[in-house]
Amino acid sequence: MIPDIAPCLDIDGARATIRLRRPLEHNRIDPSDLAILLDHIEHLRSDKAVRVLVVTGTGNKTFSSGYTVAAIREHLDDRLERVLDTLESLPLPVVCALNGSVYGGAVDLALCCDFRIGVKGSRMFMPAAKFGLHYYPGGIRRYVTRLGLNSAKKLFLTAQTIDSNEMLRIGFLTELVAADELEPAVARYVDALIDCEPGVVASMKLHLNQTADGNIDLAAQRAAYEKSLRSNELARRLQDLAKT
Amino acid sequence: MIPDIAPCLDIDGARATIRLRRPLEHNRIDPSDLAILLDHIEHLRSDKAVRVLVVTGTGNKTFSSGYTVAAIREHLDDRLERVLDTLESLPLPVVCALNGSVYGGAVDLALCCDFRIGVKGSRMFMPAAKFGLHYYPGGIRRYVTRLGLNSAKKLFLTAQTIDSNEMLRIGFLTELVAADELEPAVARYVDALIDCEPGVVASMKLHLNQTADGNIDLAAQRAAYEKSLRSNELARRLQDLAKT
Amino acid sequence: MIPDIAPCLDIDGARATIRLRRPLEHNRIDPSDLAILLDHIEHLRSDKAVRVLVVTGTGNKTFSSGYTVAAIREHLDDRLERVLDTLESLPLPVVCALNGSVYGGAVDLALCCDFRIGVKGSRMFMPAAKFGLHYYPGGIRRYVTRLGLNSAKKLFLTAQTIDSNEMLRIGFLTELVAADELEPAVARYVDALIDCEPGVVASMKLHLNQTADGNIDLAAQRAAYEKSLRSNELARRLQDLAKT
Repeated sequence: MIPDIAPCLDIDGARATIRLRRPLEHNRIDPSDLAILLDHIEHLRSDKAVRVLVVTGTGNKTFSSGYTVAAIREHLDDRLERVLDTLESLPLPVVCALNGSVYGGAVDLALCCDFRIGVKGSRMFMPAAKFGLHYYPGGIRRYVTRLGLNSAKKLFLTAQTIDSNEMLRIGFLTELVAADELEPAVARYVDALIDCEPGVVASMKLHLNQTADGNIDLAAQRAAYEKSLRSNELARRLQDLAKT
Repeated sequence: MIPDIAPCLDIDGARATIRLRRPLEHNRIDPSDLAILLDHIEHLRSDKAVRVLVVTGTGNKTFSSGYTVAAIREHLDDRLERVLDTLESLPLPVVCALNGSVYGGAVDLALCCDFRIGVKGSRMFMPAAKFGLHYYPGGIRRYVTRLGLNSAKKLFLTAQTIDSNEMLRIGFLTELVAADELEPAVARYVDALIDCEPGVVASMKLHLNQTADGNIDLAAQRAAYEKSLRSNELARRLQDLAKT
Repeated sequence: MIPDIAPCLDIDGARATIRLRRPLEHNRIDPSDLAILLDHIEHLRSDKAVRVLVVTGTGNKTFSSGYTVAAIREHLDDRLERVLDTLESLPLPVVCALNGSVYGGAVDLALCCDFRIGVKGSRMFMPAAKFGLHYYPGGIRRYVTRLGLNSAKKLFLTAQTIDSNEMLRIGFLTELVAADELEPAVARYVDALIDCEPGVVASMKLHLNQTADGNIDLAAQRAAYEKSLRSNELARRLQDLAKT
């Protein structure tokens, strides 16, 4: 039985949504949430009806603040990294719907998603260096490959707060919308992603991530390309398009 | 004899221009154009009078839409990749003058150029995943190294259309100008490129591309630097500058 | 005895400032400055009271123009590279306060810093290719990893001048402020950096730089993370935060 403040997984047709549910506590991640999150993600790996995952928070103030100071002191271990790495490598496309500000470990949670849609007026900061906490390798890699060296340094080394315009400018946000436009914008992404061929999306996501990580498997890319060229799915979809 | 709708090559002093010539069909690339394009590019490799190449389309609507659905179904093979890789590695600097919107395979054609100047009101999309087509390795590499992981994912995995402001923001466009400012902007780039020393431009282009690809040849970079330091051309140009 | 036009080092509490002092000559770097700069940087490496370095120029016109044409002709050798590489790898966080425009070799000096705060109305250009000078390997690497391939090509291959808005857009500037806001903005960075734990800042800076260079030491990152997790400093700082 999942407690009603733990992250829930809802599946509606081809769309799955993981929602953080502690709005009175900035949707913080509790150490006890990790096993639940991992279960949700593993479930999605095997549910073939699901085509896209949305990760979001509850309320209109904060997407998530990650671990609290107390949780860092007492419970930070490699389980958090495992959840994040597993989310990053999920074959489904993942949209992060940032219903508000994002702090601490939740920034890396958002970076594990493929797209980040944020709302005007929200803010972001990453206070680890202020706490005296060095970041773990996966987080360092994701900040640099998703945000570039300059922005990774600003966030990690100065722990300064940035506003939503800067979140867009540095490429953290894929889209920046008014708060009441968040759900329509997310729905547009979901619809667009569902229109695409899932096997191609999964393989391209893998190879795009690997390319950004400097870990390119040319033979696998070539094989995936050629397989798609000869696929019945390509023939069928192109034939449908030719008719319209 | 090149048919009058195939891509033409015009040389005017130090400037060469390759122009796509199917404005009534979004300047699509026909499979039969590839051998002609390859000839044009190979010609430029040996014509020492040419110092810069401009790639553009005809009309004010579309730069190019790449291959049609029918061409993908029947004629997509590694000849297109060969043309694109050859263009990317041309020692000349290449300016893409996007006289309008850019779709499909023409996005990668533009990414093979060193600079992309676009016009306000134009748009871009890459529908491969919608067709069920996985991208070939060179294209995946170019999207990630030129646009970064976040934007490569948005374009490839969602197949959404983006507008000219976003094309500038994500770094696809080097410049965004009003339609009637396109040719003056291109001319400024051409003039600036011709002012630079061609051997240095060719070698720096090579090493910048290799560095972005994670394929750094330090010894060759060092040798090129030291050769330029001892060159008569450097001495002559610096002496001319000291006089002004 | 340092001549009063050579770069000076001032230390005020935890903040060190290196100031270029040739405002009537665009704060150019003289070949004789290099040994002095290297001394300043080496001093900072051993002065444990200093927590952040600011690099700036004198006056409100130019941050620095790097080497003059005459200095390039007669004195360019690997001493300049050594100063730049040493600055880049300094364990302290380094803020470049660009009090005006930045030209030539001074662009790479700024890229060796972790943060670049510039003023509205300033400009930037890199004329090496116009002189017939190929860039040295460290500079090519820094342009690509800090600015991306597209912007590195525009600056290096066209030698065109860009304005302060573009300097911000391409990520060269971390912040763009009005001239009279420069010192307050720098002070905010200095204060924020001093608030962070110096050992963590030094190690994260190293690993962020290495990650951007494609030279990742996972074991060292992991060890630094775990050491910080068990540190008294983390416990003390988190305890202080829990009290507030």
